[in-house]
Amino acid sequence: MTDELPDVDLDAFRREGLLPTPGAEPAQHDGTGRVGLSFTVLDTDPERTAHRQVRVPPGVTVFDAASWNGIAIDSTCGGHGTCHKCKVRVEGSTPITRHDVKTFTREQLDAGWRLACLVNATRDLTVDVPPLTTRPKAATVGVGRQVILRPAIQKRYVELDEPTLADQRTDLARLLEAIDDLEPTADLHVLRRLPSVLRQADFKVTAVVVDEALVDVEPGDTTKQQYAIAFDLGTTTVVATLLDVGTGTPVAVASMLNRQQPFGGDVITRISATMMDPEALGRLQAAACDTLATLAAQVCDEGGVDPAHVYEVAIAGNATMTALALGIDPEPLGVAPFIMSTAQPPDLLAADLGLALHPRARVTLFPALGAYVGGDIVAGMLATGMDRDKRTRLFIDVGTNCEIVVSDGDRILSTAAPAGPAFEGGAIRCGMRAADGAIEVVKLGEDVELGVIGDVEPKGLCGSGLVDAVAELVKVGLLDASGRYVADEVAKEVAPSLADRLTMLSNSKGAQERVFVLHRPTPDAEPGDCVVLSQRDVRELQFAKAAISTGWTLLLEELGLEHRDVQQVLLAGSFGSYLSAASAVRIGLVPKLPVLRIVAAGNVAGEGAKMALLSVRERAGAQALLEEVTYVELSDRTDFNDRFVDQLGF
Amino acid sequence: MTDELPDVDLDAFRREGLLPTPGAEPAQHDGTGRVGLSFTVLDTDPERTAHRQVRVPPGVTVFDAASWNGIAIDSTCGGHGTCHKCKVRVEGSTPITRHDVKTFTREQLDAGWRLACLVNATRDLTVDVPPLTTRPKAATVGVGRQVILRPAIQKRYVELDEPTLADQRTDLARLLEAIDDLEPTADLHVLRRLPSVLRQADFKVTAVVVDEALVDVEPGDTTKQQYAIAFDLGTTTVVATLLDVGTGTPVAVASMLNRQQPFGGDVITRISATMMDPEALGRLQAAACDTLATLAAQVCDEGGVDPAHVYEVAIAGNATMTALALGIDPEPLGVAPFIMSTAQPPDLLAADLGLALHPRARVTLFPALGAYVGGDIVAGMLATGMDRDKRTRLFIDVGTNCEIVVSDGDRILSTAAPAGPAFEGGAIRCGMRAADGAIEVVKLGEDVELGVIGDVEPKGLCGSGLVDAVAELVKVGLLDASGRYVADEVAKEVAPSLADRLTMLSNSKGAQERVFVLHRPTPDAEPGDCVVLSQRDVRELQFAKAAISTGWTLLLEELGLEHRDVQQVLLAGSFGSYLSAASAVRIGLVPKLPVLRIVAAGNVAGEGAKMALLSVRERAGAQALLEEVTYVELSDRTDFNDRFVDQLGF
Repeated sequence: MTDELPDVDLDAFRREGLLPTPGAEPAQHDGTGRVGLSFTVLDTDPERTAHRQVRVPPGVTVFDAASWNGIAIDSTCGGHGTCHKCKVRVEGSTPITRHDVKTFTREQLDAGWRLACLVNATRDLTVDVPPLTTRPKAATVGVGRQVILRPAIQKRYVELDEPTLADQRTDLARLLEAIDDLEPTADLHVLRRLPSVLRQADFKVTAVVVDEALVDVEPGDTTKQQYAIAFDLGTTTVVATLLDVGTGTPVAVASMLNRQQPFGGDVITRISATMMDPEALGRLQAAACDTLATLAAQVCDEGGVDPAHVYEVAIAGNATMTALALGIDPEPLGVAPFIMSTAQPPDLLAADLGLALHPRARVTLFPALGAYVGGDIVAGMLATGMDRDKRTRLFIDVGTNCEIVVSDGDRILSTAAPAGPAFEGGAIRCGMRAADGAIEVVKLGEDVELGVIGDVEPKGLCGSGLVDAVAELVKVGLLDASGRYVADEVAKEVAPSLADRLTMLSNSKGAQERVFVLHRPTPDAEPGDCVVLSQRDVRELQFAKAAISTGWTLLLEELGLEHRDVQQVLLAGSFGSYLSAASAVRIGLVPKLPVLRIVAAGNVAGEGAKMALLSVRERAGAQALLEEVTYVELSDRTDFNDRFVDQLGF
Repeated sequence: MTDELPDVDLDAFRREGLLPTPGAEPAQHDGTGRVGLSFTVLDTDPERTAHRQVRVPPGVTVFDAASWNGIAIDSTCGGHGTCHKCKVRVEGSTPITRHDVKTFTREQLDAGWRLACLVNATRDLTVDVPPLTTRPKAATVGVGRQVILRPAIQKRYVELDEPTLADQRTDLARLLEAIDDLEPTADLHVLRRLPSVLRQADFKVTAVVVDEALVDVEPGDTTKQQYAIAFDLGTTTVVATLLDVGTGTPVAVASMLNRQQPFGGDVITRISATMMDPEALGRLQAAACDTLATLAAQVCDEGGVDPAHVYEVAIAGNATMTALALGIDPEPLGVAPFIMSTAQPPDLLAADLGLALHPRARVTLFPALGAYVGGDIVAGMLATGMDRDKRTRLFIDVGTNCEIVVSDGDRILSTAAPAGPAFEGGAIRCGMRAADGAIEVVKLGEDVELGVIGDVEPKGLCGSGLVDAVAELVKVGLLDASGRYVADEVAKEVAPSLADRLTMLSNSKGAQERVFVLHRPTPDAEPGDCVVLSQRDVRELQFAKAAISTGWTLLLEELGLEHRDVQQVLLAGSFGSYLSAASAVRIGLVPKLPVLRIVAAGNVAGEGAKMALLSVRERAGAQALLEEVTYVELSDRTDFNDRFVDQLGF
């Protein structure tokens, strides 16, 4: 077929990237669905010339591929094709765009010079990057990722010519022509201010651009004041970080409990609340917005920053938290088949959420992959570079709902496992949130050693303490592989110094069950006044870990991988930070790997939100994840239950 | 230089339309800056095949060129490249886009088939248009223009599959995939409604799309209810027309005085009001919005239409009226160098203007060419087809400020002339607005014959009556060519039956001036109780007509044209409708042409607003006028004053 077409049409196809270049085809792809870019990054000092190989999904621009991998290319417009500064030389035939023709001489075009933001990497490419004319700023965020600062917020101080009869350009045209590497649109708010601000400030003003929007024009030079707030909108805890986007540095951090707590501790109880009371949705939304507003005021106050200089907000939250904050009915998220209203939340203003920041401050919300793999996980994937690491990695965010992502360096799969309340302490007899008095570390030897949050008397057991306790009890032999407390006589044999801590206690329904006493407030305290781990608690954890391990087992199988192929496990969320790697391995929550391969990644959702504020390229990366990640629904898998039972033992 | 480039790069240039095709160059342009398209419009009945030649500015798409000229091409997306239906066959080499590759076979591409909305007419083209699969609706609006209905409002009734665990598409994705020839974005408002509306309506809903936005989803089939309101926002009078955009028919019309009247009769007094009182801008804005809201409620009521089914509003107003309605400080419009905040008003919602229509109903405002050639004139140019008529035409909108547009069928020039208050009746002794009791026609013979608005006693003289009176007085010889009343003895000679109507009267400052009595309420009424035309009134008119005729004289000269080259004069505005062509010619307000060439075009601003609502292509045409029309500022022209004096005589 191909040969029947005249040459000219074939060329057209090739220019559109729809046909391979003849002869070059076999070398185009290595079968992984990605293309390889070989960058030579030149420096004014020739000895510092660097070479970098990166692999990206086909169709990504050369500019994005470089940005995502920390390679800086000159640009002031952030890759919109308007500033004409991101000049690179590409080997081989590459389509020429209108913008290239305006930027380069014919000889330069012939030599392969192109604007990097307009070259789509549809095949392997070799790219020369000329030395930077200005050093880009960068910040380290996420899990040790170096991010080149390209915030959506851009401020430009300009001194404009005053209008005359010979120069009747409109106020807006006059301003926009002075910042013509950007092409923002102006809304009514800024148009209302423009005539008076220009004239009062003698036409010396600072234009404030966020993404594609001119959000304000401020008298004089205010370019040093440009701030944004990153929110990690958790079901339990909400964290705000005020960022100076000009320098990439955090100015203030604050956190507080989500004010939705009175409606229930987890997403399901909050969704249920909206189903039972038609007014609950409005109240839940108000509570979320109130939490965000309180934190926003707090970080501005602590950082000594005028809230009117905060022009953007990023929010990473799970699908339910996002829906509730926006006032979108979450009911379809809570019942099968678990449907989101949208994967990509709409653009909105901080004012729409009741935040008293700049009146046109914008909100960027992370997209979600599914009802239970939400924007917090997408943010976490961004922060951990799940999409641009060549290693086989497993990402687990452990909570009431547990999100799991597996990447083999090429394909990325995700799923959600209903871990139940074990990790939030809800259904655990002495369970509590990871707050002061919570046992977070348990070591069993001759005696019981406890790590407790805060310098206080142990009051209960948080998720990581629970995992530790069970892992240690399995290790010393007081729990058997099926998760049952051993008989007293066996206990005395395997752990004589601990055996007397195994005793009986009646549960809330009056039935007796076996418990292990972790902490006695006084030597003669009744078991009912002690911090204990009950047989039922062990079962709760067993179910949770079985759900989680079934999740990643099935995802690894989908990719044709064994447990041992996993090169890194990232444990995310505040829970992940507390969890000891050894314990997690021991109870089978994560694959049985050397503990050094298991990394507590911390609050990755918050880090992802920061990255989105510091770099529009990273933000685009989060969007790209929607296409790159395959969501696997486990609840209708016929093999899920069998696997689940397999995973119940320790 | 060209020959030194390798072939492949030349091709790239040509594909981008940046280099001519070799050999074809001399035939490309005819020197007018436009390109010619030769359409062959096929019909299922071969005898009805039609041929049409049209000329458009280079770069216009073939789809737009056809639409603007009433040639229908299949399309459901309105030319956004998404529906893949606007198939045409283009002769000669034309770039192939991604969308073309998806739509056509290689053989079809080779035969020249392309999507019309993606072919830019950068050279003369021959285009075959296949027979329509559906008959497009059309409406006649503007000055007899046939407009193919392509409203920005599109409603689609869909019956969606209900979600399952195997089909977890989000609510939004499910809806958008069912209307995938459109690609609207969803805002928070619609996302809040979506989950509940879909489920309450059993997934049988109507999507409401306006332009690029999904503005609502309504239960069941509401496709028959789709309305919009066109506003002519005049300084004096505001007119609203409720349109059924599905059929193109007006449902109700209403008009009222602009409630800004108490702040002054013309734009300058209203601008002055804002300069003297900082609260006046807010009150003027409220008055404008109140006027629009009252009319909107009235037309909905009269038409029996639920205001929630009105999804779009178009407003044509001059630059000052537009600024005041939006709450933008108009001061820079009122003082030299006469600067607008923006030529293109921003997108906004009808709710932002206080209109109680659909909560997300959108407002489209016409762009302006200059501080005194505003959106009303752009709308008028659209309605009269100033940009697509091959004749040399002169468009004059007569008012306190007079806007003038000249087109030679290729270049279009515009300017504004300060006509002063003569045409609004303000500075005229017995002047009044064109309302009941206003003399609008004057004929002098043996006696005075008057045409009066309404069946009432004459109370004063409106603008058209003023022109008539002066023209008739010149004709009978009571006014000489310099505009002076002739001496009594001359009067008795040239018009014996009228001479006694010339008398003396003291003006407001006590000075005596000559007046001509047009109407005596009683035979023995004092001259002070009569409707008279004073010497000073004649001077006012002289200045006005001199300003106007200087305006079009200079514009004609710029185009190298003589008066006699003008093939049509369009007199616009409510004033233009009242003015008699013969009188206008006689006093020199328009070139001395056969009266048949002088057309009262009526309320062209309102017609333009209707067209913008009925067709997004027409709306794009209004935008294109911003590029096509050159604004000529007269106030800094050194030759203006000399020409003005030349034009003072009759």
